[in-house]
Amino acid sequence: MKRFTTIPVAAAMLLVSAGLGQGQEVTPVPAVTGEVVWILNSLLFLIGGVLVFFMAAGFAMLEGGLVRSRNVTMQMTKNVALFSLAAIMYWLVGYNLMYPCDDCWAIEGYLSGLFPSWGVLEPVGVTLAEADDPAYASTGSDFIFQLMFCAATASIVSGALAERIKLWPFLIFVCVLTGFIYPLTASWLWGGGWLDRAGFSDFAGSTVVHACGAAAALAGAIVLGPRMGKYKDGRINPMPGSNLPLATLGMFILWFGWFGFNGGSQLAMGSAGDVANISRIFANTNMAAVAGAVAVLILTQLIYGKPDLTMILNGALAGLVSITADPLAPSLGLALIIGAIGGVIVVITVPMLDRMRIDDVVGAIPVHGCAGIWGTFAVVLTGGHHGGATLGAQILGMVAIIGTALVLSLVVWYTLKFTMGIRVSEDAELAGLDISELGMESYPEFAKG
Amino acid sequence: MKRFTTIPVAAAMLLVSAGLGQGQEVTPVPAVTGEVVWILNSLLFLIGGVLVFFMAAGFAMLEGGLVRSRNVTMQMTKNVALFSLAAIMYWLVGYNLMYPCDDCWAIEGYLSGLFPSWGVLEPVGVTLAEADDPAYASTGSDFIFQLMFCAATASIVSGALAERIKLWPFLIFVCVLTGFIYPLTASWLWGGGWLDRAGFSDFAGSTVVHACGAAAALAGAIVLGPRMGKYKDGRINPMPGSNLPLATLGMFILWFGWFGFNGGSQLAMGSAGDVANISRIFANTNMAAVAGAVAVLILTQLIYGKPDLTMILNGALAGLVSITADPLAPSLGLALIIGAIGGVIVVITVPMLDRMRIDDVVGAIPVHGCAGIWGTFAVVLTGGHHGGATLGAQILGMVAIIGTALVLSLVVWYTLKFTMGIRVSEDAELAGLDISELGMESYPEFAKG
Amino acid sequence: MKRFTTIPVAAAMLLVSAGLGQGQEVTPVPAVTGEVVWILNSLLFLIGGVLVFFMAAGFAMLEGGLVRSRNVTMQMTKNVALFSLAAIMYWLVGYNLMYPCDDCWAIEGYLSGLFPSWGVLEPVGVTLAEADDPAYASTGSDFIFQLMFCAATASIVSGALAERIKLWPFLIFVCVLTGFIYPLTASWLWGGGWLDRAGFSDFAGSTVVHACGAAAALAGAIVLGPRMGKYKDGRINPMPGSNLPLATLGMFILWFGWFGFNGGSQLAMGSAGDVANISRIFANTNMAAVAGAVAVLILTQLIYGKPDLTMILNGALAGLVSITADPLAPSLGLALIIGAIGGVIVVITVPMLDRMRIDDVVGAIPVHGCAGIWGTFAVVLTGGHHGGATLGAQILGMVAIIGTALVLSLVVWYTLKFTMGIRVSEDAELAGLDISELGMESYPEFAKG
Repeated sequence: MKRFTTIPVAAAMLLVSAGLGQGQEVTPVPAVTGEVVWILNSLLFLIGGVLVFFMAAGFAMLEGGLVRSRNVTMQMTKNVALFSLAAIMYWLVGYNLMYPCDDCWAIEGYLSGLFPSWGVLEPVGVTLAEADDPAYASTGSDFIFQLMFCAATASIVSGALAERIKLWPFLIFVCVLTGFIYPLTASWLWGGGWLDRAGFSDFAGSTVVHACGAAAALAGAIVLGPRMGKYKDGRINPMPGSNLPLATLGMFILWFGWFGFNGGSQLAMGSAGDVANISRIFANTNMAAVAGAVAVLILTQLIYGKPDLTMILNGALAGLVSITADPLAPSLGLALIIGAIGGVIVVITVPMLDRMRIDDVVGAIPVHGCAGIWGTFAVVLTGGHHGGATLGAQILGMVAIIGTALVLSLVVWYTLKFTMGIRVSEDAELAGLDISELGMESYPEFAKG
Repeated sequence: MKRFTTIPVAAAMLLVSAGLGQGQEVTPVPAVTGEVVWILNSLLFLIGGVLVFFMAAGFAMLEGGLVRSRNVTMQMTKNVALFSLAAIMYWLVGYNLMYPCDDCWAIEGYLSGLFPSWGVLEPVGVTLAEADDPAYASTGSDFIFQLMFCAATASIVSGALAERIKLWPFLIFVCVLTGFIYPLTASWLWGGGWLDRAGFSDFAGSTVVHACGAAAALAGAIVLGPRMGKYKDGRINPMPGSNLPLATLGMFILWFGWFGFNGGSQLAMGSAGDVANISRIFANTNMAAVAGAVAVLILTQLIYGKPDLTMILNGALAGLVSITADPLAPSLGLALIIGAIGGVIVVITVPMLDRMRIDDVVGAIPVHGCAGIWGTFAVVLTGGHHGGATLGAQILGMVAIIGTALVLSLVVWYTLKFTMGIRVSEDAELAGLDISELGMESYPEFAKG
Repeated sequence: MKRFTTIPVAAAMLLVSAGLGQGQEVTPVPAVTGEVVWILNSLLFLIGGVLVFFMAAGFAMLEGGLVRSRNVTMQMTKNVALFSLAAIMYWLVGYNLMYPCDDCWAIEGYLSGLFPSWGVLEPVGVTLAEADDPAYASTGSDFIFQLMFCAATASIVSGALAERIKLWPFLIFVCVLTGFIYPLTASWLWGGGWLDRAGFSDFAGSTVVHACGAAAALAGAIVLGPRMGKYKDGRINPMPGSNLPLATLGMFILWFGWFGFNGGSQLAMGSAGDVANISRIFANTNMAAVAGAVAVLILTQLIYGKPDLTMILNGALAGLVSITADPLAPSLGLALIIGAIGGVIVVITVPMLDRMRIDDVVGAIPVHGCAGIWGTFAVVLTGGHHGGATLGAQILGMVAIIGTALVLSLVVWYTLKFTMGIRVSEDAELAGLDISELGMESYPEFAKG
């Protein structure tokens, strides 16, 4: 007698009969073997990591399009440099800080060998049995994926502080943020720390990445002060971006990368349930983005009588940030609402920051901070991907992470301000950082109108 | 005694002997289990969907580079908005219209719940056994993939009507196109409708997507009329694009996305045959693109004495459109010929449209319409991916889809024209839509030459 | 009694007992079946191929941003055309030349059929048993992956020779390079030729692709001579790039594509060891890029008193080129050192070339040539991915490939020079190639400053 039996195991298993005579036993063969699961999980991280990497280009283009042409070369330099330093700091310190392990904190271990791999990469040609975690994914794939999240946090800061901050103090801040602040606060949730145990739920990082980066940016904007002439005689002077198709491209690249950001955060692709979840995440992520864009499109038409492209770009991004805390559990209709409210928040908070004379050049604080907070609250609507997320736990998580990031960032920014100074001279700011600080124009041949 | 035996079955199966003594039975173990097939199929849709999503950026950059700088902010706004509205309309109406199911058309079902998921997403953590279609792919992955095709159809329209159409009537048209027209005509083939039964063959949408979008664009261009000064005193006045590297980038992004567009349309990646087919599709898609570019390179050199970059960009795109109806069956040599003829068609039809005083700003109608028709005819050369495609069936499919899209689009465009009006004022057109309609310049600092 | 046993085999296998009584034999079931391996390997090539394809856009944007605006349309035309011709030539000649097979060199076979598939694509729906190589990957996926490498080699040349070379002679050179020179020298290593047997080690092509392209560029730069006014009265006149955010975007796109370039060169993804290796490669590739950027950031600050963005972009690329010969074996710390030295090399060799009056517009020879040579030497530090790479073998490989590419390129460039001429007239060069050669400006509306 043949039998097909399904038994519950961690990885879904398909049982095929051994094709034997009556009375003989059944042999279980997994529908997806452990090695295929491991390969697919690793592949998810690799594809996700590449997509999130490309967000570095998205931030650079978005910011390069939204600053004035006299500061574009500087903005490019900052974006390339911040990503690069983030990658080094996260490897040197952050990754281990975020995922503490037994043997990598002992000083003797830390110093063993001139160029330790910091326990990151499995040996060449590792077998499944030798792998650091045979039930998860290759360590290198996890490292590259997590690294990109850390770098994204730093990218958020550069736009807010554009057009007036000195290069090197900014880069020093980036090193502290990516080596210490982000890994610390992120470890509380994603490193299995106390916020994880407290029930805080943040799937791909509305708070852990986006609001954390926005808090660092807010601290910087406060310490740095607004651009010269931005708030003058009680008026808010618009300083329009120099290249809107470039900014639009940046937004699209970020959206493109966000599929990896949220989809990869499923952390597994080796079962039907996992890949179905990634599909949900893709659909919800896209829906929240379009809803954010459409909400701002309509709202700016109603309020200002004409749609505002830079607001719409930020609306799409705010939709993406909003859904990031839980792109899995919502229905598409709820994702639409969450994203649309994210867009509304941008329309409300951008002028609000201006009234507070906090000068955020590209709208990073509204998009990543305010929409990030909203998205983290919105998890309560579904209970989150683990289920059972409570308002209290969400508030606790936000206060802890955003508060810590804000306070530590203020300390670092003030320290930098009172030691080396963080702001270029007035002359340099007026002339533009490209000429004054770098001696290299972004568009040297185009006459200024 | 051990034996390994391979026997032919529908899904390739690897038979391993049960390792028993002589005379005992053989146990089939699938070379690829059903769950791995489902995962790989879903993964194909997810990767393909992300690539096709990025085509939205490609269209935006291509169009932003080919319009004059006074209309670039508007073109960016339209592209972000049209993608966003397409995604919402396709979810609200289009997807169900295109793939009708039993339980989603009953009014009570349609209205059940304030924000129904419209039957789209499988529950979180669905098992293979519970999946909507355990032999295919996750519903969410199919949804996101199909959604991107719908949005691409709308993107085709925006370029043709640039520099003179009002924003809101355009967006209303997009809603009708993506919610109703495209899903209707697409369902005839891809929803298992009458054109499918009639033997019409269009692998990834030379007609279903591209010529359909071009028909909507043609209808709009006719109703809207040419730009002021384009055809004056019997002469055709060139209005050169403002940013050719941006247009080139857009073309490359579209090409990049097209690997997902055509490759994903294999709809399966869970067997050797499927992935070998995707490989054929990639190679043929690339070959047709390069052939289109080279054909225009040579032809414009011969005709005009110098190569024409914007024509070459459109030549590559025409090659891509041409091969889209059947990127699987042709040999590489045939793909080269199909793509090259696509390029030739662009060189012929772009001036032809101008002589008919149909003003298509970016050449969308020649590229997506004329090359799309050619590609749909070319299926007859191989018989198509199902085999047996006839000239009659291809003509029937094109007449039905293009004719319906054209007639319905004309009705919508005329309705919009005679109700709210679709064209900006002459003053607004002369000043450029960026200033007059949006109050925001795309390159505010660059002096106009 | 059921037993689950794991035994070590070449390809990791999971052995499940046949579920029989004691004493019966054990049936091996592979942890990853042959068909899944084949699918995953092919998928790696397809994803890698798409990523490397996008590098064509990266080269175009990098070069378009670094040339002066009067030559941008020409640079776009060259980049689209060179990729297209490379794809055709590699199919017509190169692929077979690089991977010679028994039946494709006989003239009768070569001419059989008007449009032979050149043995490239497996038939539609091929089964694993019928596949060209059931233990590897689909032939079409290998073809598309290898094709992109060939095209990348040609892309390297176009930047170096910008702003003064005629279009058609350049394209003829591209045809010779991609159809004959690159496939010939590459076959010595990757086609299983004599350099492979001699122990030369170059994982993804620091020498085979990058230094080969740089050698062709160097030959061209020597034969062509510098731009007018570049070296005048003993001074080196800077000719700054016209669009630095575009160049930055190009750099990011190249970096993005490099994950496919190096990762795909693992050539397999069907085992834990393979995907863990790809993870190592991703991490090391990224680390080398950031190290190259940071090294140049610091060095230009120290030397010139201010960071130099175009040097930093080239530093990141030099880091990528340096790690390409062996992105697998190094630890992350070693990858950082290898990449950083690559960056240092750029800072040293860019002015060195200028002093030699070799005019390389975008720095392609330092980035791809000098860093490529360094990277090929650096393989000795680890022994390479096969182990045992010796200094002698590395030098032999470099001398053979770079020397051959240089000599053959010189022959072709001189032949072109003395037959049709390769340089535009002085008037055309001064006016810019866009107006003089193509009659189409890249930014027609932006006044020149």
